[in-house]
Amino acid sequence: MMSRAEVTELIVTRKLEKKLSWSAIAEAVGQSKEWTTAALLGQMTLTEEQALAAARVLDLPADAVVQLQVVPYKGSLPTSVPTDPLIYRFYELINVYGTTFKALINEEFGDGIMSAIDFKMDLSREADPKGDRVQIVMSGKFLPYKTY
Amino acid sequence: MMSRAEVTELIVTRKLEKKLSWSAIAEAVGQSKEWTTAALLGQMTLTEEQALAAARVLDLPADAVVQLQVVPYKGSLPTSVPTDPLIYRFYELINVYGTTFKALINEEFGDGIMSAIDFKMDLSREADPKGDRVQIVMSGKFLPYKTY
Amino acid sequence: MMSRAEVTELIVTRKLEKKLSWSAIAEAVGQSKEWTTAALLGQMTLTEEQALAAARVLDLPADAVVQLQVVPYKGSLPTSVPTDPLIYRFYELINVYGTTFKALINEEFGDGIMSAIDFKMDLSREADPKGDRVQIVMSGKFLPYKTY
Amino acid sequence: MMSRAEVTELIVTRKLEKKLSWSAIAEAVGQSKEWTTAALLGQMTLTEEQALAAARVLDLPADAVVQLQVVPYKGSLPTSVPTDPLIYRFYELINVYGTTFKALINEEFGDGIMSAIDFKMDLSREADPKGDRVQIVMSGKFLPYKTY
Amino acid sequence: MMSRAEVTELIVTRKLEKKLSWSAIAEAVGQSKEWTTAALLGQMTLTEEQALAAARVLDLPADAVVQLQVVPYKGSLPTSVPTDPLIYRFYELINVYGTTFKALINEEFGDGIMSAIDFKMDLSREADPKGDRVQIVMSGKFLPYKTY
Amino acid sequence: MMSRAEVTELIVTRKLEKKLSWSAIAEAVGQSKEWTTAALLGQMTLTEEQALAAARVLDLPADAVVQLQVVPYKGSLPTSVPTDPLIYRFYELINVYGTTFKALINEEFGDGIMSAIDFKMDLSREADPKGDRVQIVMSGKFLPYKTY
Amino acid sequence: MMSRAEVTELIVTRKLEKKLSWSAIAEAVGQSKEWTTAALLGQMTLTEEQALAAARVLDLPADAVVQLQVVPYKGSLPTSVPTDPLIYRFYELINVYGTTFKALINEEFGDGIMSAIDFKMDLSREADPKGDRVQIVMSGKFLPYKTY
Amino acid sequence: MMSRAEVTELIVTRKLEKKLSWSAIAEAVGQSKEWTTAALLGQMTLTEEQALAAARVLDLPADAVVQLQVVPYKGSLPTSVPTDPLIYRFYELINVYGTTFKALINEEFGDGIMSAIDFKMDLSREADPKGDRVQIVMSGKFLPYKTY
Amino acid sequence: MMSRAEVTELIVTRKLEKKLSWSAIAEAVGQSKEWTTAALLGQMTLTEEQALAAARVLDLPADAVVQLQVVPYKGSLPTSVPTDPLIYRFYELINVYGTTFKALINEEFGDGIMSAIDFKMDLSREADPKGDRVQIVMSGKFLPYKTY
Amino acid sequence: MMSRAEVTELIVTRKLEKKLSWSAIAEAVGQSKEWTTAALLGQMTLTEEQALAAARVLDLPADAVVQLQVVPYKGSLPTSVPTDPLIYRFYELINVYGTTFKALINEEFGDGIMSAIDFKMDLSREADPKGDRVQIVMSGKFLPYKTY
Repeated sequence: MMSRAEVTELIVTRKLEKKLSWSAIAEAVGQSKEWTTAALLGQMTLTEEQALAAARVLDLPADAVVQLQVVPYKGSLPTSVPTDPLIYRFYELINVYGTTFKALINEEFGDGIMSAIDFKMDLSREADPKGDRVQIVMSGKFLPYKTY
Repeated sequence: MMSRAEVTELIVTRKLEKKLSWSAIAEAVGQSKEWTTAALLGQMTLTEEQALAAARVLDLPADAVVQLQVVPYKGSLPTSVPTDPLIYRFYELINVYGTTFKALINEEFGDGIMSAIDFKMDLSREADPKGDRVQIVMSGKFLPYKTY
Repeated sequence: MMSRAEVTELIVTRKLEKKLSWSAIAEAVGQSKEWTTAALLGQMTLTEEQALAAARVLDLPADAVVQLQVVPYKGSLPTSVPTDPLIYRFYELINVYGTTFKALINEEFGDGIMSAIDFKMDLSREADPKGDRVQIVMSGKFLPYKTY
Repeated sequence: MMSRAEVTELIVTRKLEKKLSWSAIAEAVGQSKEWTTAALLGQMTLTEEQALAAARVLDLPADAVVQLQVVPYKGSLPTSVPTDPLIYRFYELINVYGTTFKALINEEFGDGIMSAIDFKMDLSREADPKGDRVQIVMSGKFLPYKTY
Repeated sequence: MMSRAEVTELIVTRKLEKKLSWSAIAEAVGQSKEWTTAALLGQMTLTEEQALAAARVLDLPADAVVQLQVVPYKGSLPTSVPTDPLIYRFYELINVYGTTFKALINEEFGDGIMSAIDFKMDLSREADPKGDRVQIVMSGKFLPYKTY
Repeated sequence: MMSRAEVTELIVTRKLEKKLSWSAIAEAVGQSKEWTTAALLGQMTLTEEQALAAARVLDLPADAVVQLQVVPYKGSLPTSVPTDPLIYRFYELINVYGTTFKALINEEFGDGIMSAIDFKMDLSREADPKGDRVQIVMSGKFLPYKTY
Repeated sequence: MMSRAEVTELIVTRKLEKKLSWSAIAEAVGQSKEWTTAALLGQMTLTEEQALAAARVLDLPADAVVQLQVVPYKGSLPTSVPTDPLIYRFYELINVYGTTFKALINEEFGDGIMSAIDFKMDLSREADPKGDRVQIVMSGKFLPYKTY
Repeated sequence: MMSRAEVTELIVTRKLEKKLSWSAIAEAVGQSKEWTTAALLGQMTLTEEQALAAARVLDLPADAVVQLQVVPYKGSLPTSVPTDPLIYRFYELINVYGTTFKALINEEFGDGIMSAIDFKMDLSREADPKGDRVQIVMSGKFLPYKTY
Repeated sequence: MMSRAEVTELIVTRKLEKKLSWSAIAEAVGQSKEWTTAALLGQMTLTEEQALAAARVLDLPADAVVQLQVVPYKGSLPTSVPTDPLIYRFYELINVYGTTFKALINEEFGDGIMSAIDFKMDLSREADPKGDRVQIVMSGKFLPYKTY
Repeated sequence: MMSRAEVTELIVTRKLEKKLSWSAIAEAVGQSKEWTTAALLGQMTLTEEQALAAARVLDLPADAVVQLQVVPYKGSLPTSVPTDPLIYRFYELINVYGTTFKALINEEFGDGIMSAIDFKMDLSREADPKGDRVQIVMSGKFLPYKTY
């Protein structure tokens, strides 16, 4: 049986060979491109139906179909401070704006957090004459701390 | 003369004493609440006009007005992996979705990054019958790597 | 105005001088001893009423009452791996049983987490002829990952 | 001869292939699901009888039966701060409540620790109309420091 | 009121000024020199009687007497790998002999640990014509892991 | 030719298969069980005679006999703070008692260290009606710093 | 299919076997030696034409040609503080001159950064009678922080 | 007497109060703006003449003049991976281009390093219609490893 | 009473004010300049006579004389990898030559170490027409591991 | 083609099999035993002639001869603080004497460093009736910082 890491590697290779986009795979799986990419990169759990759909479009073996339905050990980065410049920029945003996130969310909602579980996001291209922009819309349920 | 850290501390204290919201201060400064909060927490540089406006509403001394116009050494968190649960959730998103961000941005735009400098964001409350949600819209210019 | 860390220090000192137990303070505040202790050690936010009750029983100044109502930057330990043996034992439990927690919760509930926000706990003494035991009952809402 | 890590991997694979739950395996082994899961994930030592029972239900080779009786080098996580959100939440609880655990246990019992060795736990689903909850009951012997 | 760290510092200073040995202080406190030194360096909790005895011989103020009766946050070293050569040698012993300790204790007793709580030690000079030796006798209760 | 790590692994496997104790192997090698275990776990250097004796009792190939006579790169633990509870307890002792070791050795001997090289130890079971104890006697030559 | 790391390793080996210089390969690829070396060491993305040119001169298989066109996970060093003396010297320059870079760039341009994406560099030998020198010319677009 | 860190802080404050640029101070000191900034930020050693010139223009006390002539403990950043975005970009360049620097310098010069001691640099604005650029020219003597 | 760190700081300041060299102070103390410098920088213990001599030449108060006779907590660097270029070069030598030191010492002497306690060193200028050199002669007793 | 790490491993194995000393290999290579050992352990670059000589005496394949002529990525230790006691002692010397090295070199030579590149060393046995000593003579060119 393949390990989950080997399934991820196989998916990336098959995607390359078949020249498929993540959006096309997501359409086949029937979910958003954001969730589907995360799932196929080993961060989310697929249902049997979703796993079979992914296997059809990417030509994955039966073993992979089973593995995709197992809850993975999450965490997709090799170091605690990421070295890839694209991913680092997000880490930098937390470093610079982290206390701002906290100040504004606490002011608006009180003590609590934005859920990273009951969470969805949408990543799109924003046309701009001065150079197109990446737009990311995040939406997470606010969860308040309660007294007891 | 006060250090920038002392100015930040004074701002937080005065805001508490005067029961001002970040939005109200931002309005006085004439910028968005996101940028203004980051600036007053020591991460951005104010113009003289902005610094004077902040000083008026928060009753800051002349020294602080000078310091707010100096480019600060950025980085607002005490540890490389944040311990505060609200801020940690953003770090977790990078840990789980980092490779997804990279895969989707690279697919849409090619090799490059989303700028964390030519960047703006908007944080708002999204009403939801199952519990209100935090919505964050990020927008950063795409910067491509070029050959030379 | 005092910083939150100074308020915490003052609370610990006053508790010592007045020979108060955490349970007694919690009763005055009107919440469980678990929540109240965490709050007074700088990890939770009190309402004005709770802060005033705490101030009365611990003889705290007005400044402290304001600070106790501010959402704190959470995280109560000086190092990422705790050095105090009592606290380390909990870290050891995660090190040894972490994958077990994950396996059993995922098996019972599917992919998701036990909330550390919508969470409560109860710590009590369990009499035992072979030596009394510490009993801790934790209860956190299960939050499932959803597709989108 | 297989290494302990290979035995763990084989157990996880066989469990998947045979669609067994941890509870079912635990019943076969004759211990609680909590202890059995930890043991089969490489954190506890089985007796010959327990190892044989596990081998029968999971179809393990003779080598594995020997390895399961060897005291393992414990520690089940790849990084000192866990990246998986489910496991991280427990780490967060220690970060936020660590000093509370210490304050309350010391107040109730004096100077000492809750044993992580003479320890047992029970993990169960708590039905709740607002969303089911994970309940974990931990029980560890109190061990006092003594003078000498 | 003094912090525990300030009490420790005061004790070390007073001991210097009064040219007292740790053994002499231990005799006054009525415990072994090993336990007493650890306690006065902020790692153990004294009873009121012990604290008063220490205060008499070291001329400590009333505040210190209270602090010595509080359970301290333990951990006496500034870095996770100690830099002082004397203390480092003990760390080196664990690095070189750690797996040997484990192999021999597990062989003799089964799966479990040597308690660091129900523990005592004795440090003495061993005369030797080739150069005197430091002898340390450690004794800790064996605590077995149990199934449940 | 085998690497030293492969020799160690082979020794542990052979010991398991032949159901030999470390004491029995030590007797064959003609040294204490403490030194022999450390040596066979890759931390000490054997003479040709000792290596041949170990090879006879454990049925090791000629390659292993050569490797056992090579001075190894010492250090037997995978992380700087050990995760295994048995080994961690020793680390905890240094964390709690490190400054005590220093204070008492410096008081008795002056400035210097307890050698971790000219060092021996003895690990034994101490019968005790309240539960048997692990006793460890360490003896290291005192080495004074000298002026020059 | 080969992984990107294997492609890098193959390139380095082929370059050795064919005694090619980086400059010669760069000429074949049609870009500067600085960009080409970075690209072939796994840090930049080649176009199909560039990848085919590299494959011709280095005799790479079709698999490698595909991999060279994929956006890589960037970061070419094994540790966060580099151990190789040549590379460390650059880290040392940041350690010593980092605040100088910041002070001078901020003074000249205001708050912002030198882009590491819209960036090019030129490395050449500078003849000098006292010993030839390495000359590196870096040029990065200045990106200002803007208010919003 | 002031510590070097206090001298640095005083210099930064005086520069702010007197609205002096680093270039103007450098002119007074008689050296390049790059070297002078590094020196006044505590990374280089001034001669008596240079220190007196700096003191005149910045109105520093006699104590500071002495301190500026002492060789400082170098290293101007608070963390090993810098958090300030401007300084981080240089760290990123090493992460991405480090092996390229090594490959090209070794190819051109053989085994050795670019000196970070016999080193100078020049930082200037490069006008560009697409946005001005930061240009940095570094020049360090090549130092070869020699056999012996 | 002054702390040892304050004594060190005072010594460095007084040395500056009195324009004394370390050699001159060492002569007054009656030991080598290497040992004396280490001792006065807080790494060695002085006898009463040596401490009084140092106090005379440096004009230190009585408190300092006592502190200099106390065994210090050794370790003179603020980070585990030093940032100062002069000190880093020694760290680099260990990184590059560490396994060479081990190979050659083990070959010449067998398994054991060069003592860092029974150790002395001499640092001098070596005239050289191509540029003077720093010469350091280290001499440490070889300590063999023994079987037992 | 072999990697440099495989070449190093092969060299160590062949040296063992052929019972060659580092001195004997160095004589064959025609350089000092210190430089030759470092080179063959993967830290220095050999000329073709030196590589062929090493290959003859150690019976290395043609691949290895090529690899030995490539500039290696230097750094011979697996962790930033070494665990092997022999190598650690050198790290300890830097920790204890690092500021002394700096103080004495700066006093004698002014601001600058001892080169670790234009560097040589000699390691020898120093006969001593109280136990033979390891003597290490290091010699590195002094490189001064210059103003510009």
